[in-house]
Amino acid sequence: MQAYLDNNRATAVDPQVLAAMEPLLKEPVGDLNALHSLGASSRKLYTEAMEKLYAGLHAPEESDLFLTSGAAENHSTLMMGIYIGDILTGKKNAIILSERESPSMMEAAKLLESQGCRIHYLPLNAEGVVEVESLYDYITPRSALVSVPMVDPETGAIQPVGELAEICRKYDVPFHTDATQALGRIPVDLQEIEPDILSFSSETLHAPSGVGAVWLREGAEWMPMIFGRRNHYESYRGGPLNLCGAVGLGKAMELASDSLDFEMEDARELRDKLEEALREMEGVTPLVPWALRIPNTLLVAVEGVESEMMLAELAREGVQAYSYTIHPFGDWKRRALTDIFGLDPKLRHSTVGFALSRFTTKEEIDHTIKTFREALDYLRDFSAYDTKGEQV
Amino acid sequence: MQAYLDNNRATAVDPQVLAAMEPLLKEPVGDLNALHSLGASSRKLYTEAMEKLYAGLHAPEESDLFLTSGAAENHSTLMMGIYIGDILTGKKNAIILSERESPSMMEAAKLLESQGCRIHYLPLNAEGVVEVESLYDYITPRSALVSVPMVDPETGAIQPVGELAEICRKYDVPFHTDATQALGRIPVDLQEIEPDILSFSSETLHAPSGVGAVWLREGAEWMPMIFGRRNHYESYRGGPLNLCGAVGLGKAMELASDSLDFEMEDARELRDKLEEALREMEGVTPLVPWALRIPNTLLVAVEGVESEMMLAELAREGVQAYSYTIHPFGDWKRRALTDIFGLDPKLRHSTVGFALSRFTTKEEIDHTIKTFREALDYLRDFSAYDTKGEQV
Repeated sequence: MQAYLDNNRATAVDPQVLAAMEPLLKEPVGDLNALHSLGASSRKLYTEAMEKLYAGLHAPEESDLFLTSGAAENHSTLMMGIYIGDILTGKKNAIILSERESPSMMEAAKLLESQGCRIHYLPLNAEGVVEVESLYDYITPRSALVSVPMVDPETGAIQPVGELAEICRKYDVPFHTDATQALGRIPVDLQEIEPDILSFSSETLHAPSGVGAVWLREGAEWMPMIFGRRNHYESYRGGPLNLCGAVGLGKAMELASDSLDFEMEDARELRDKLEEALREMEGVTPLVPWALRIPNTLLVAVEGVESEMMLAELAREGVQAYSYTIHPFGDWKRRALTDIFGLDPKLRHSTVGFALSRFTTKEEIDHTIKTFREALDYLRDFSAYDTKGEQV
Repeated sequence: MQAYLDNNRATAVDPQVLAAMEPLLKEPVGDLNALHSLGASSRKLYTEAMEKLYAGLHAPEESDLFLTSGAAENHSTLMMGIYIGDILTGKKNAIILSERESPSMMEAAKLLESQGCRIHYLPLNAEGVVEVESLYDYITPRSALVSVPMVDPETGAIQPVGELAEICRKYDVPFHTDATQALGRIPVDLQEIEPDILSFSSETLHAPSGVGAVWLREGAEWMPMIFGRRNHYESYRGGPLNLCGAVGLGKAMELASDSLDFEMEDARELRDKLEEALREMEGVTPLVPWALRIPNTLLVAVEGVESEMMLAELAREGVQAYSYTIHPFGDWKRRALTDIFGLDPKLRHSTVGFALSRFTTKEEIDHTIKTFREALDYLRDFSAYDTKGEQV
């Protein structure tokens, strides 16, 4: 039996998304600039896809939304644009990021730091969220950007982006949030939270990977880094449009909105079932309080067991779980989860995560619980360490 | 009847490419960094796709090849990297481009020019190709880059990139060429032509759009602009890999190599049939000599007829042809084709192009010839201008 529970990193394409894309994969697709019938039908498909994206975000008509190749492009372009347009020109003097921003934001920050740009990192509290008040320690009217993702993909912790955006408005500092992990899991309503820039990408939205988008509040600035033909849909991002990806992303956004109640109730119920079962096992501790987490995610610290060994045991039985901390993605430093959550440093390499999707079944969760329990027994018997990590 | 003849801008996905991608569109796809069975199978698929790309280009094992989101990203990153790494630092002092480089190269050049960077444009001769000797007018050891695409997508003219690359080597100046329009139409063999950087993208390779790649000769420099996790496949371009796109691109490259003889003989035969028929019509002149053109392309100047009206007439009967010059992609200037080919300036808005693919049939070409002849008669009767563009 297979149980794919790594849905905060990559999701299966929804069959309805594939069905929407299929005509574009089976027939010639006209370029949006083409002056023939297929060009015209492509422009119609593009408009419909964009309408679905606006609707899914409750984005005002007068705001801007444009397509990209995904999160890494969104983040790199944002950071380079702020650096070139605001920092190098001397208009602004620092960038403020969550201490657990995405790898692409962190890599860009590292590069900018090496060029002399000042970056401040907002610390997370022991519940895994950014303390809103901590922003006051760093923000000034000369801050160039504040960026905090809506949800931490590893822990599932929901960040207080509405309140952070409000503080930024007072200082007239642009606020960016990546909504990728939030879409389809919790409401993302641009009438409620008010960032200046919101970005997202396809890979956890049951859409094909390699597509993303950036939304800009009316008047927000964005410096393009990928140049090309200049027309209505390429003013922020050049190059022939990935229409098939756009259609897939639009449909995926529509389905994410339609299934939000299901994800917040039925998927949560399955996650809670898994959480209760694991919590009852000795030395297994869920991280991030239940109420602060998106409904599909459970990250646990497991005493006396190495993550990688547990993942290998689970995978043998078809359970695909995750631990991002094993391979810490590059040489920039993030504080260990054990530090953030005040756990014994011995647990640093002992976290395992489960991220469900709307396609996860009760049978898969039952199978996961059974497999995890057996793996725990086997690994602890096998190991020379007791559950507390002390050598026997 | 449909006849899709805009294949230098966008191609239909080959059914075999779709078949290769389909498992990744129907089942969960593991992230390449994931520590579970799906991560492992993804890494295997990635390796196989890359092997196909190396094989298709005859690329030496020790050279580098990495995936991107396509041509606009390839070109923008190249130009920004050269600007930041070589021009701003004062190491080099100018960039040399074909006067008909791609929109993304031209837009980037325009931006760099506005920042004070010197750009030289290599002129095309009356056959639509860059004169090799003209490079000597501009190149010096302080040139930062020379870039000329292998094939002009509008005219189909094959550029002398091998000879240009040779001159660049003498001056130790990096030479870049975009091979997109050449792949699958003429041999692209990195053992024969020797650029330092070669880039291409998927949209005319019968692969889904939104994927591309950059090849680097051993020792060639590349400054990444899209940051992310750092591992073996993300050292030049960050972000979660678009595996489905990579698998599609790999398969498309394999098929392009396999069908090269077909494209160079059978597709050329169909194109020649169309060319002969159109040449016989009064006031219809093919541009670029036959021997200098890729086998799928025919661009004609049509006396006394506006491109857009001809395209509308053709489209009514299902014939999807092209004319890029109608909408000249942004406010940077390219010399009109009529100037380049020494034609009457009245023909400036009277070019129509046909780009076949390996899926084009004899029936489609017959239908195109018939439709073109009827449209020509109708439009010239309708118009107040005679075939020479003089008012009647």
